[in-house]
Amino acid sequence: MADDVLLAETTRGGRVESRHYGAAVVVDAHGGVVFSAGDVTTPVFPRSTVKAFMALPLVASGAADRYGLSDAALALACASHQGEPAHVALAADMLARTGRDYTALECGTHWPLDTTSARALAAAGQDACALHNCCSGKHAGFICLSCATGVDPEHYARPEHPVMQTMASTLTAVTGAAHTQDNRGVDGCAIPTWAIPLPALALGFARLGTGAGLNADHAAAAARLRTAIAANPFMVAGTGQFDTLVMQDVAPYALTKMGAEGVMTVTLPTQGLGIAIKCRDGGIRAAEAAAAALISRFGKLESARLQHFMRRTLKNWNGQIVGELRAAADLAPDHLPANAS
Amino acid sequence: MADDVLLAETTRGGRVESRHYGAAVVVDAHGGVVFSAGDVTTPVFPRSTVKAFMALPLVASGAADRYGLSDAALALACASHQGEPAHVALAADMLARTGRDYTALECGTHWPLDTTSARALAAAGQDACALHNCCSGKHAGFICLSCATGVDPEHYARPEHPVMQTMASTLTAVTGAAHTQDNRGVDGCAIPTWAIPLPALALGFARLGTGAGLNADHAAAAARLRTAIAANPFMVAGTGQFDTLVMQDVAPYALTKMGAEGVMTVTLPTQGLGIAIKCRDGGIRAAEAAAAALISRFGKLESARLQHFMRRTLKNWNGQIVGELRAAADLAPDHLPANAS
Repeated sequence: MADDVLLAETTRGGRVESRHYGAAVVVDAHGGVVFSAGDVTTPVFPRSTVKAFMALPLVASGAADRYGLSDAALALACASHQGEPAHVALAADMLARTGRDYTALECGTHWPLDTTSARALAAAGQDACALHNCCSGKHAGFICLSCATGVDPEHYARPEHPVMQTMASTLTAVTGAAHTQDNRGVDGCAIPTWAIPLPALALGFARLGTGAGLNADHAAAAARLRTAIAANPFMVAGTGQFDTLVMQDVAPYALTKMGAEGVMTVTLPTQGLGIAIKCRDGGIRAAEAAAAALISRFGKLESARLQHFMRRTLKNWNGQIVGELRAAADLAPDHLPANAS
Repeated sequence: MADDVLLAETTRGGRVESRHYGAAVVVDAHGGVVFSAGDVTTPVFPRSTVKAFMALPLVASGAADRYGLSDAALALACASHQGEPAHVALAADMLARTGRDYTALECGTHWPLDTTSARALAAAGQDACALHNCCSGKHAGFICLSCATGVDPEHYARPEHPVMQTMASTLTAVTGAAHTQDNRGVDGCAIPTWAIPLPALALGFARLGTGAGLNADHAAAAARLRTAIAANPFMVAGTGQFDTLVMQDVAPYALTKMGAEGVMTVTLPTQGLGIAIKCRDGGIRAAEAAAAALISRFGKLESARLQHFMRRTLKNWNGQIVGELRAAADLAPDHLPANAS
């Protein structure tokens, strides 16, 4: 097991203040490792990064067509959204197409992650419900899949439910890694999450981007999801979020997805590559910086927002610049001095 | 420079999901090192941990008496508060005693960190102001000090202002470490923060707890601040916060203070010890777990809340237990199996 490597660091007053270590791997659709740094052997919980894999059956089963789900709805099924009004309305619409409402959701309730939306909700005298949960689009997709395939959606979040059985077999097929009781945990939204090696996670994204190694139904579904995500970056995350901002700049050439506890994944369809990153301490800011650097380097992409996330100034409450957050020099493309200071 | 050590880790499904590394040191009031782990030589920005040191001149100068500041107000001057109504009202009262209001604050504005308070403010149709900034009590203290000593408080947050000159000399006296332009950065609330070695930070807290090594005025002020903090743990942080919860259990035997980017400090007056911890990645959850373990071990204290922060279950939005956050076994008292699973 290799030692983890520096992914990103923050500075203040010209000194390093905090450092994030972890692992990153870039693989092609045949599993060939193009780049590897840090401990890529210890299995990692992918958390929300695999939502697009979990949406493959929604499309491949015909459920998406049966309920007339728009590209925006498919993007929301792959989302960790911020609970903004457009996200909430679309999740409610997905459920309504099955004759259900928010009470069918098993993800639990939290206030919108977008603080402006949370305050607006409070100002309107309303309370949060499960639609505001960042995973409500994915869960609405599970309910669509369940209803379209004639299965009662009740307890759909449990590992033994047919929908979760389908998720386990789909994730196994896409990543090539086993998804069993042995490597299973419970995710924040109550469905299972399975710990797998980082290269298997990256392989899944290389396959998602190319269709190579997927069965014909999954390959067709992957193509449709790529189009849906690339056309709706806002639905995948929301205001001010890495996934939304970066994909608004560089989709469809790079599709990105964050996961809780410092996981970032990237699909580079044109290059036929997948990227998976784990910041070992769970710090998403470092995973974002590292992802921006690796997208630029292996996707051969340049954009203002990639530059921003690779190296951005940190400001205090008065707007004064106090330091920066920067990707480790070893990750950045040679021509971008991400670590020059 | 020693390698950093494991401070805390999180688990999910019986596996470690994330790991936090850093350094911790325990020293006595004469600078004797009782315990040391990780890299304790690289200077660290103490951030908000040193607010009690910065409140020494407020008491020692006579400003606190001149304005009749209560013990609660002195605790608020040492606080990173959550912007709850009681914090905001008290900060406003401190300013009113100098004939000023929130417009004199130079800390900048952010919404209350306590989300319930933020939503209540929005529901009342109000906006956030500088009083809601988590540092408003400290800044109100600076303004009291400035006014009481006949200095115009305008630009009090700048390094060249007499108040900040007093802070630099006070921090130098208390910690024994140089506080100059060379090790200076800008904090989140616009005042300077100086990077110092972790043992110097811990020494300051050993001195704060005992008065040893402080001049007579500072020693008397330290005693008064200890009493004020121990009697008002809510004012130092707020609902659900480590400092408030732990001090409600174990003050005056342990006084704690968090700082941004994963810094935790502890005063153990009875033992004559100070503790300083830096989680290298900035993760405060790990610094809290490590602090709970070291308080229990070196303070010879046991309490339900210390146990909780040393090893606590993590739940999802449905209240389901999904894993735990636990201090590293090497930090915990031998009789507490903090890392047994």
